[in-house]
Amino acid sequence: MAQTYQAQVYVTLRPSVLDPAGTAVRSGLEHMGYDNVSKIRIGKYIEVSLTADSEEAATQQLDRMCDQLLANPVIENYRIELQAMATA
Amino acid sequence: MAQTYQAQVYVTLRPSVLDPAGTAVRSGLEHMGYDNVSKIRIGKYIEVSLTADSEEAATQQLDRMCDQLLANPVIENYRIELQAMATA
Repeated sequence: MAQTYQAQVYVTLRPSVLDPAGTAVRSGLEHMGYDNVSKIRIGKYIEVSLTADSEEAATQQLDRMCDQLLANPVIENYRIELQAMATA
Repeated sequence: MAQTYQAQVYVTLRPSVLDPAGTAVRSGLEHMGYDNVSKIRIGKYIEVSLTADSEEAATQQLDRMCDQLLANPVIENYRIELQAMATA
């Protein structure tokens, strides 16, 4: 039976890829007096609600969605967390 | 003594605020055949490395940084996670 799942997807730039936005934020913080921040990397945090027959099916679908649309696998990594929601 | 901390900051739109980017992604997924996705919200995931005298000091500073620069408190919520890094 189909079950509702709540997923969190974390999309981060690969370590070898420059993050100009993160560098700009770090520089902004430094100008505001926060001179103890050594590194900032900015990624995406995506909350997804979906229905699927099983946790495996939901994870597989989220993997495909990340590869095709949510992330750019050439420069980004992603990590998926999944919880089944209580059925009504 | 100053200690290095690694923080994760999750910035999400407040539930009452519309998320046009999330809606566009959901619509894109639907056109790709993923018609079982009921909701998508897109936020930011920020990794911060900083030094501070204590966990409390680090958390307080991250709070101020979020209020002033990393998030827009009018339309966004944020959540902070913090780990002390092993000292060399």
